[in-house]
Amino acid sequence: MIQLSPLLLLPLFSVFNSIADASTEYLRPQIHLTPDQGWMNDPNGMFYDRKDKLWHVYFQHNPDKKSIWATPVTWGHSTSKDLLTWDYHGNALEPENDDEGIFSGSVVVDRNNTSGFFNDSTDPEQRIVAIYTNNAQLQTQEIAYSLDKGYSFIKYDQNPVINVNSSQQRDPKVLWHDESNQWIMVVAKTQEFKVQIYGSPDLKKWDLKSNFTSNGYLGFQYECPGLFKLPIENPLNDTVTSKWVLLLAINPGSPLGGSINEYFIGDFDGTTFHPDDGATRFMDIGKDFYAFQSFDNTEPEDGALGLAWASNWQYANTVPTENWRSSMSLVRNYTLKYVDVNPENYGLTLIQKPVYDTKETRLNETLKTLETINEYEVNDLKLDKSSFVATDFNTERNATGVFEFDLKFTQTDLKMGYSNMTTQFGLYIHSQTVKGSQETLQLVFDTLSTTWYIDRTTQHSFQRNSPVFTERISTYVEKIDTTDQGNVYTLYGVVDRNILELYFNDGSIAMTNTFFFREGKIPTSFEVVCDSEKSFITIDELSVRELARK
Amino acid sequence: MIQLSPLLLLPLFSVFNSIADASTEYLRPQIHLTPDQGWMNDPNGMFYDRKDKLWHVYFQHNPDKKSIWATPVTWGHSTSKDLLTWDYHGNALEPENDDEGIFSGSVVVDRNNTSGFFNDSTDPEQRIVAIYTNNAQLQTQEIAYSLDKGYSFIKYDQNPVINVNSSQQRDPKVLWHDESNQWIMVVAKTQEFKVQIYGSPDLKKWDLKSNFTSNGYLGFQYECPGLFKLPIENPLNDTVTSKWVLLLAINPGSPLGGSINEYFIGDFDGTTFHPDDGATRFMDIGKDFYAFQSFDNTEPEDGALGLAWASNWQYANTVPTENWRSSMSLVRNYTLKYVDVNPENYGLTLIQKPVYDTKETRLNETLKTLETINEYEVNDLKLDKSSFVATDFNTERNATGVFEFDLKFTQTDLKMGYSNMTTQFGLYIHSQTVKGSQETLQLVFDTLSTTWYIDRTTQHSFQRNSPVFTERISTYVEKIDTTDQGNVYTLYGVVDRNILELYFNDGSIAMTNTFFFREGKIPTSFEVVCDSEKSFITIDELSVRELARK
Repeated sequence: MIQLSPLLLLPLFSVFNSIADASTEYLRPQIHLTPDQGWMNDPNGMFYDRKDKLWHVYFQHNPDKKSIWATPVTWGHSTSKDLLTWDYHGNALEPENDDEGIFSGSVVVDRNNTSGFFNDSTDPEQRIVAIYTNNAQLQTQEIAYSLDKGYSFIKYDQNPVINVNSSQQRDPKVLWHDESNQWIMVVAKTQEFKVQIYGSPDLKKWDLKSNFTSNGYLGFQYECPGLFKLPIENPLNDTVTSKWVLLLAINPGSPLGGSINEYFIGDFDGTTFHPDDGATRFMDIGKDFYAFQSFDNTEPEDGALGLAWASNWQYANTVPTENWRSSMSLVRNYTLKYVDVNPENYGLTLIQKPVYDTKETRLNETLKTLETINEYEVNDLKLDKSSFVATDFNTERNATGVFEFDLKFTQTDLKMGYSNMTTQFGLYIHSQTVKGSQETLQLVFDTLSTTWYIDRTTQHSFQRNSPVFTERISTYVEKIDTTDQGNVYTLYGVVDRNILELYFNDGSIAMTNTFFFREGKIPTSFEVVCDSEKSFITIDELSVRELARK
Repeated sequence: MIQLSPLLLLPLFSVFNSIADASTEYLRPQIHLTPDQGWMNDPNGMFYDRKDKLWHVYFQHNPDKKSIWATPVTWGHSTSKDLLTWDYHGNALEPENDDEGIFSGSVVVDRNNTSGFFNDSTDPEQRIVAIYTNNAQLQTQEIAYSLDKGYSFIKYDQNPVINVNSSQQRDPKVLWHDESNQWIMVVAKTQEFKVQIYGSPDLKKWDLKSNFTSNGYLGFQYECPGLFKLPIENPLNDTVTSKWVLLLAINPGSPLGGSINEYFIGDFDGTTFHPDDGATRFMDIGKDFYAFQSFDNTEPEDGALGLAWASNWQYANTVPTENWRSSMSLVRNYTLKYVDVNPENYGLTLIQKPVYDTKETRLNETLKTLETINEYEVNDLKLDKSSFVATDFNTERNATGVFEFDLKFTQTDLKMGYSNMTTQFGLYIHSQTVKGSQETLQLVFDTLSTTWYIDRTTQHSFQRNSPVFTERISTYVEKIDTTDQGNVYTLYGVVDRNILELYFNDGSIAMTNTFFFREGKIPTSFEVVCDSEKSFITIDELSVRELARK
C-alpha cells in the first residue's frame, strides 16, 4: 500500500534568515556552522558552558573575504544555544605576528583552578583555558585563559608549555582523566606518525607518558588527535560497558584522496592507549569529514558530542563560494555498539547520529526548534519501473533547501545480478528548475555489489575544473537484518543546501559529502527512481521531511 | 631545449595477432594475461618450471562465453615463456559437481617428494602439487598432484587435508620455509578477519600454528592471503637485509569501493608473523588490483615475482567485453626499500616494477622480445600554455595500442596555489578518431594538493551505467627529490589497450586502472597539456615508446 501524504500547510514567512546578498549565499548551509565571512578549517576549543548553557566552537580562521587559507591564522569563534544556529563573534585568539598562526587546539573548563589563572570572580563553570599550537618558526604548545567566558583570551606569560624544538608537533587535545587525577593531552608529532600522550597536574607542566606510533593508515602525516571514553550501547557483559577511542586525522594521503579521519578502539590507563586490535577504521567514508573534535565538559548524555570540518584539503580553497569557505558537519552523538560486520563477525563499531537537540534544549521553551514544515511518506511499496515516488517542496513558495529522510528497505530478490538487468534503485535529490536546467544529486544502491554510491556531479564549472573533487564515491554496506522477505537496510540522510550527511544502518557507517549546485539552485525535491521491470526492492518505510527553525 | 624525435620506421606487418573477431577484441590487452574465452578472476597456483623454463598461471575460471562468474568454477591454465605472451590451455582442475568450485589456491614444486605422490619417473623440478579450496557445502582445503608438468591434476584420495567445518575458510597459499624445514600455509578464515598460519611436513597433515587477526583495513572479509620474504634494497645495516611481507585482499569494503590488496611488513619465525608496526598499507591504490599472488619456485632474482587480477568485484561481471572478461596485471618484481614518506620519515615500503624479461629470457635468443617501434622524447622543457608536446603513433599504419612512458619533472614554482591560476598539467592518452570522435584517458598532476589523478571517463555506455566504476581516482604522491630548481617527481606508465599501470617514484606507489574506449578505439597518441600562462613545471625527461613483440 502506498501512502502519499498531502503537502502540509505552507508557511507564509521566510524560515531562514538571509545572511548576505553575495551571489553564492544560496550555497550556505542553514543548520550547519559556517563563518559569516572568511576562511575556516579545523574545529578548535569546543566546550559547553554549563552555566550559560552555551556551546562554544572555535575554528581555524582568517576573516579576510578572499576566504583562502592564509596567515595570520586565528581562532574564529561561534556560539550556539541549540547546536543548529550559530552566532559568529570574529577572532577570539590571534598570533603575535601576521606571518604566524594560532593553530589547532582545545579548551578545557578548569573548574578547580588547577592552573591558578582564576580567582573567585570567575565562576568555576567558566574557568576557560585554551591549549593550542603556536605556529611560528617552531610549533610549540601554548596556553591562554579567558576571564570573559571564552570571548577573549590572555596568553600565559610563560609560554610555551611544551617545546620539543620541532616544526611538526601540533593540535593538542586536552581532557581531564578522573582515574589518574590529571590532565591528559594527545598531540600529533605529525611526520613521525606519533600520537603523543602527555600528563599534567596544572596545564602548565607536561610530562610525556607514551607514544602511539605508526598505527592505522599513515598517509603523509598525522593531525588533530583526539581521545574519549564512550559507552557501549549493548555491552557483552557487565564488566566492560565503555571503551576508550583514540582518533586521528591524516592529510594528505587518504585512500579516497586528500583528508580523512580514523579511529582506534581500546583502553587507556592514564599513561598508554592500548588498542583492542590492529584494525584501521575510518570515522566517515565520505570526502568531507576532517579534523574531528569532541566537546569538552558536556553534561552527561548518552555518549560524547563532536563535529568535524566538512571539507577536504584537496579542494577546500577552491570550492565556489564567495566571501566565506567551508562548513562544519552537524554536531554528532558518539557511542559504541556491537554490530554485524558480516555473518560471522559481531564487532564493536563507532555509532554516529546527528544531534538536533539535547536534554537542555528540550527543556528550554524559548529556543527555536527544528520543525517539519512539509512531509512525505511511502510505506510497503514494491518498487519497479511503474512506481511514482516523488515529492516537491518547492511548489507555491520558497523551499528551505533543508530536509531529512529516513529509509528502510528490503532487497527481496537476492539472486539478481551477473546479468544485464537493472539492479539499482536511486534516491534523487533535485534542485528547482532555473533557466530550464535542474541539478540532481544521486544516491544509488547497487544490489550487484551491495554498494551505495553518491554521484555529486553538477553542471558547475568548479566541478569540471576540480577532478580531485571525486564525483562518484561508493561504499559497501552490510545488511542490518534478514527477514523472510530478504535483506533489510536502513539509511538516514540530511540535506542542507550544499552538504549531504548519510548515516547507514542506524549510524554504524557515516558518509559526508559537499556538493555545489549552480545559479542559485538549492535542493528542493526528492524522487525514488528504479528502471527495473521486475521489483527487487521493497520500500518498507520512507519519510522525507522538509525542515525549518521556527 | 626540446627534442622532437621523428617517427621511426613503420613496420609493415601486424605486430600482434588478432585472437578473434568478436567486436570487443580491440579491448583485449596484448601483453597482459587474458583468458582466450570465458570468465577469469583470482590468479592461482602460480609457479615457475625451472626445467622447461616455463611460467604457469592458473586462475579462477569458467570458460563459458557468457563470461560471468558462475559454477562450476575451475582452474583455468595459461603458460608463458616470456611473461608477456600467454598460451591458454583451458581447464586444469575441475570440481566434482557443477554447482561446486575449485576455489583459489597455490602450487608448490615438491622437489624432495615430501608428499610421496611422485616416483623417479617425474623429474624433481616438475613434482607439482596444487593446494586449493574445494567449495561445496563447506570450504575445505584439498590437494592434487600432476604427473604431466601441471597440465592436469590427480586429486588426493584422502582429501580434504583441512576441514574446519566452515563455509568461510579459503585461498591457501603454500611456501617452503627453509628455516623451520616445513611447508607453511597461509589461508583466510574470511569473516573472522584471520590469516591462519598452518605448518606441514608433507602437504597432507597440517597443524594450525597461529592466527594473524583483525589487522589492517577489514572490509567485509579477508581473502587470498600471501607471505613472502623480500630483500631490502638499501638496508640500514648488515643484520637486517630482508623482511617478511604478509599480504591479504579485502572485498567488498575497500575504501575506494570494492576490492583492494593490503600488506604488512614484519618477521616470520615459522609459527607467527610479527608485524613491525600497526600500519595499514595498500599494494596498489587503483581500483583494479586484487587477489595478488606470488610465483612459487622462482629462480633467485632480485626479489619476488607476482601478479594480481586487474579488476574489481564492483563491476567485474559487467565490463563491456564479449566472450572473455578480465586480465591480470603485468608480472611485477617485488622488493622493499626505505623511501622518504615525508620530510621526517624514512619508511620501509614495497617497491613494484613491471617485469618484461628475466635472466632466463634474456639468455634465450629464440624468444620474441618486447621492442620499441616508435619513440618520442622531450627534455628540459619549461612547460606552459604555448608548449606543444604530443606524439601520434597512428600515422600511416595500425598502432599496437601498447606503449610505455617515463617522466621525470620538477615542480619549479612551489608557491603556486590558493588562487585561480591553473596549477595542473596533464598527460593525455588519446585514441584514434573514429566517426568523428576521440576518447581520452587523462592523467593529471595537481600542484595545489600534490595529487595525481586519473580520469578514465569515456563515452562508453558502460560508464554511464556503472557509477561504481569510479572515473576519477586521486592519490597524494610525495616528491622523490628536491633540487635547486624545486621538487622532483618520477612516473613510469604502461598502457595496454584497456589497462593503465602507473608506477610513481620508482615503483614506491603503484596505481592500476582499467578503462573502456568504445567503437574499436585503442590508445594511439600521447599529449602533455598545460593551460597555464606561467610555467610552474619543467619536464626534465619524458620518453614515450610504442611497443610490440617482434
